[in-house]
Amino acid sequence: MGGEISLEKEMLVSLIKASSGEELCDLVLKNAQIADVFSGEIIQRNIAVKDGYIVGFGDEYKGAEEIDLKNAYVAPGLIDAHIHIESTLATPKEFSRAAIKHGITSVVMDPHEIANVMGTSGLDYMLKASENLPVDFMMMLPSCVPATEFETSGAILHAEDLKPFYRRNKVAGLAEVMDLNAVRSTSEDMMTKLLDANTIHKTVDGHGSGLSPHDNNIYRTAGITTDHECTTLEEAKDRLEKGFYIHIREGSVAKNFDALIPLVTRNSCRRFTFCTDDIYISDLNEHGSIDDMVRRAIKTGLDPVDAIRMATLNPSECYGLKSKGAVAPGYEADFLIVDDLAEFVISSVYKKGQLVYDKNEVKYSYPENIAGDMPDTMNLPDLGKR
Amino acid sequence: MGGEISLEKEMLVSLIKASSGEELCDLVLKNAQIADVFSGEIIQRNIAVKDGYIVGFGDEYKGAEEIDLKNAYVAPGLIDAHIHIESTLATPKEFSRAAIKHGITSVVMDPHEIANVMGTSGLDYMLKASENLPVDFMMMLPSCVPATEFETSGAILHAEDLKPFYRRNKVAGLAEVMDLNAVRSTSEDMMTKLLDANTIHKTVDGHGSGLSPHDNNIYRTAGITTDHECTTLEEAKDRLEKGFYIHIREGSVAKNFDALIPLVTRNSCRRFTFCTDDIYISDLNEHGSIDDMVRRAIKTGLDPVDAIRMATLNPSECYGLKSKGAVAPGYEADFLIVDDLAEFVISSVYKKGQLVYDKNEVKYSYPENIAGDMPDTMNLPDLGKR
Repeated sequence: MGGEISLEKEMLVSLIKASSGEELCDLVLKNAQIADVFSGEIIQRNIAVKDGYIVGFGDEYKGAEEIDLKNAYVAPGLIDAHIHIESTLATPKEFSRAAIKHGITSVVMDPHEIANVMGTSGLDYMLKASENLPVDFMMMLPSCVPATEFETSGAILHAEDLKPFYRRNKVAGLAEVMDLNAVRSTSEDMMTKLLDANTIHKTVDGHGSGLSPHDNNIYRTAGITTDHECTTLEEAKDRLEKGFYIHIREGSVAKNFDALIPLVTRNSCRRFTFCTDDIYISDLNEHGSIDDMVRRAIKTGLDPVDAIRMATLNPSECYGLKSKGAVAPGYEADFLIVDDLAEFVISSVYKKGQLVYDKNEVKYSYPENIAGDMPDTMNLPDLGKR
Repeated sequence: MGGEISLEKEMLVSLIKASSGEELCDLVLKNAQIADVFSGEIIQRNIAVKDGYIVGFGDEYKGAEEIDLKNAYVAPGLIDAHIHIESTLATPKEFSRAAIKHGITSVVMDPHEIANVMGTSGLDYMLKASENLPVDFMMMLPSCVPATEFETSGAILHAEDLKPFYRRNKVAGLAEVMDLNAVRSTSEDMMTKLLDANTIHKTVDGHGSGLSPHDNNIYRTAGITTDHECTTLEEAKDRLEKGFYIHIREGSVAKNFDALIPLVTRNSCRRFTFCTDDIYISDLNEHGSIDDMVRRAIKTGLDPVDAIRMATLNPSECYGLKSKGAVAPGYEADFLIVDDLAEFVISSVYKKGQLVYDKNEVKYSYPENIAGDMPDTMNLPDLGKR
């Protein structure tokens, strides 16, 4: 107390001063046609940005930089609700280069694969390697390392190994629970993992591949609230009515979009998000991912703002990412300039108020050596000596 | 670790065993027509209940008690999103008697009035006096005691007084911020209060009576995410697009339902809830409150499930009440039996799986002396000696 001012407080004060007009904003975007995920309407506003946050709508704001958008559409930055970065075959840094081209400014990652090999040092690596990038990497803590007790992978993560990670501010919950047997048999370690996440109101992901309606009762009773493994309408209907968020998955191998999208209507769409789960960096780079799902959802007849909600506000609510998922005061200044809303062609991307992609070019200046140390994980004989 | 089993774990194990069918359920309600707040549809299911929670949908469950609902409708227990219990002129216990008759099984209370007089011992009293009742009383911590620095009430609550209360599991956030001046001028104590709530992802309520669009920018930038003071469509539109949840208020004095309901559509309804703010116990008892708003919303043409969402899932999401607001596995067994969905006539009320109201009679057995000690707060001369 007293004279001590935390970094957070200094920042909050700066934001409020910009919002009240006492200080100049960093950026004002004029004449934006915002896809308003709250009302579901398109609204024309000027957007004021300071220190990476939106601090106001209105004509009263002045910015160090001012840009007239001339009625271009503005949508919130997209969120991939579930992805294993390891499956892209790229580091978070290289992943981010491809992601921002497609308007993906945040992902909810599950470092299951690296944890399987390296345990908690894999989690440490992913947290460190994903810092200071133009994409926010929220982390779910791998719940099933190894996947079942019958598997012998390189590492074992018990509840007590995971618990300290909940103090890290990028950690949003417990990752895909795939060990139905551990849940059904109420294994001590699994119960602790579930309670550790649920008692601090963090989200617990499911992985209900092939689960029956009866199994889904057990999963929901255990506090598991998402699923990204639906492949049929029947599976998705059962999970929807039981209160699972349904992440519609379209990756490099598993492709469930066409099967599931008929279930999404204006009436039900708040419970659906988009995810990739596993996607190769080449596929992401060339064809996009979440942006492409938004486009396809619009083509099936969904209202563009509903499709955008599925990639923004919905995953934000699902994972409690309170300042992500909308273009509005108090939200992070992650947004896309979109030339044609129905075609959803992304011309520029802003991350925390900074232009990171514009006219087919990545504009973000990557710092050198951002990754943490990667311990030796691959061992080969000295090839020269053979 | 080891042999130590917490109460929470014991309960989770019991729920999962009932869900998997290994143990008998307490109650099975057959042939329920559930208002499914997720899909927005009416679905016919059997509902299995154990230890106050719903543990499954399905024909496979057996219960110690089994009731055939014969296709009666079942809706989630209603939530009053913002209420000062003191303004009812009743204790939480007496309030609960009136509330359950009208299907209100949870409230988000702001003990602003008692805190103004008694400070933190008022908060302690309200937490204690609201235990073991057929209504859950979630508490928001009064942010503005006194309301402004120009007021001299009986108590002052600083950030450091409030912070320890966030450890109590009924505390859902920081209550109505009404001191615009303290926010705009970034007062040290107000900044700490806002950050204490926001850094642990708790909700911060606004109280934006008469606030301009510019003021609302400042409030949202400060992390305030609800408002219950809208009186006109214009005010509500501005708050909606800025990301405030709008609590539509209909109390004994302030009545905003008719003015605001035209803004609610299927497109926007997820951002609206119902509240009373201040209602006399006699009004609640005779005319109801949240239940009546649901009825009136349906009469204006809203789909019954959308109207029910506004009183259940929406406030649950707004305040992070993860196991409230829906009839589905994993949710608390708080629900209403409703004879006619469009007329929303409540015939019975279950709280945590227990029948607490049935056929015009309160069935809950109140324990004696549930209230905590109330220190002397009113002082009169000895009237006999005058």
